[in-house]
Amino acid sequence: MKKVVLLRHGESTWNKENRFTGWTDVDLTSVGVEEAHEAARLMNEAGFRFGMAFTSYLKRAIKTLNVVLEDMDLLQIPVEKSWRLNEKHYGMLQGLNKAETAEKYSEEKVLVWRRSYDIAPDEIPADDSRNTRKDPKYADVDPKLIPLTEALKDCIERTLPYWNEHIVPSLKQYDEVIVAAHGNSLRGIIKHLKNISDEDISKLNLPTAMPYVFEFDKDMNLVKDYFLGDPDELAKRMEAVANQGKVK
Amino acid sequence: MKKVVLLRHGESTWNKENRFTGWTDVDLTSVGVEEAHEAARLMNEAGFRFGMAFTSYLKRAIKTLNVVLEDMDLLQIPVEKSWRLNEKHYGMLQGLNKAETAEKYSEEKVLVWRRSYDIAPDEIPADDSRNTRKDPKYADVDPKLIPLTEALKDCIERTLPYWNEHIVPSLKQYDEVIVAAHGNSLRGIIKHLKNISDEDISKLNLPTAMPYVFEFDKDMNLVKDYFLGDPDELAKRMEAVANQGKVK
Repeated sequence: MKKVVLLRHGESTWNKENRFTGWTDVDLTSVGVEEAHEAARLMNEAGFRFGMAFTSYLKRAIKTLNVVLEDMDLLQIPVEKSWRLNEKHYGMLQGLNKAETAEKYSEEKVLVWRRSYDIAPDEIPADDSRNTRKDPKYADVDPKLIPLTEALKDCIERTLPYWNEHIVPSLKQYDEVIVAAHGNSLRGIIKHLKNISDEDISKLNLPTAMPYVFEFDKDMNLVKDYFLGDPDELAKRMEAVANQGKVK
Repeated sequence: MKKVVLLRHGESTWNKENRFTGWTDVDLTSVGVEEAHEAARLMNEAGFRFGMAFTSYLKRAIKTLNVVLEDMDLLQIPVEKSWRLNEKHYGMLQGLNKAETAEKYSEEKVLVWRRSYDIAPDEIPADDSRNTRKDPKYADVDPKLIPLTEALKDCIERTLPYWNEHIVPSLKQYDEVIVAAHGNSLRGIIKHLKNISDEDISKLNLPTAMPYVFEFDKDMNLVKDYFLGDPDELAKRMEAVANQGKVK
């Protein structure tokens, strides 16, 4: 049996401020750090012993992973980072408050931007300070691959090659690996694994820092998937994510 | 110009308790964490921008590196970990207090164990709980390669292949890399780079968490080497390391 745990990062400063984050490299809040410790506790309790870890280029995911690895006494395992696991790029919405944007444009419009499968927000202009193509952190990435905005479809299309070419092959060597990433990059993987339709994937509200376990047989057929942790806490966190785009 | 920064981890709990540590996986103290922040400040001030990082399997080095990478906004760079960068294995001395051991056996004997080039402490027996060959953290390493004790010579012999086969080649791709490791694994690299004799290398007392910069020309000839930071602080930390094996 091979196991992959998908873990969305803990609460970030902009989750808390209810702003569109995307590729903005914001930090975890103290609550987010606590959520990471709790995730580690659940995975320790369930007996996980990861051979390798994957994460994005964004510190809220990397720091969530570092907390988890330290608490699980696994700091020494290989960690591979990729921009392909970054959050969906939110284009011109990056930095805006979700509730204020909903008030200005309507809840429906914000829901489209947040959850439609193939409609992307407007692009960030080339000369905008938020343009990640200028960020030295991404100097090793072909600028043509770096998005200026993304629909969920675009995010999934750049995440899945990483799943197929890096994460799946790692399971030849390791029985258990962990992927610490973001709501939408993980959505892409989950959509693929569970054959979820373009329409239904937008309704999946992945909770912050709740370990989501996928078990595979030796041919990489999905056998079962389940969250670790208290079902009430899980429902609460899913609800919190779903409500972020509403007018307060 | 290519640059490598060698960084010994910050103060660990057993540095503080003055115990032989070796491969024992002890944590940083709060002072050690502060030292890591200060090292990051010095490297930021000097304008370093590492493309890649190397560290050991031991958490005091990994955590020192993680603090540095976060403070330098470089959490996204690749980090490669290897047991070959681990501290010198101290065999049966691991866990013993240095001053008490000096009192029991003599300062001279302790100095031989700490600093002779080719005399190793007695081996840890196979059934000892300190035997790292049984530690799941090292499951990916050929057990025959895992030491039960080491002289400095042995430590250098397993560190240098890593320098030559991993760190030096990384400089083809990156102009600046950092190696966060340990007093004796770094001694091995420094001995090699500066052509220090077997006798003189034992007198080099590498201070905790002071960035030691090595600059190379394009043919990897060493051009110059220097520490970052205040010379008085440097002298103080070198002295503190040198005095650890003395009767109090």
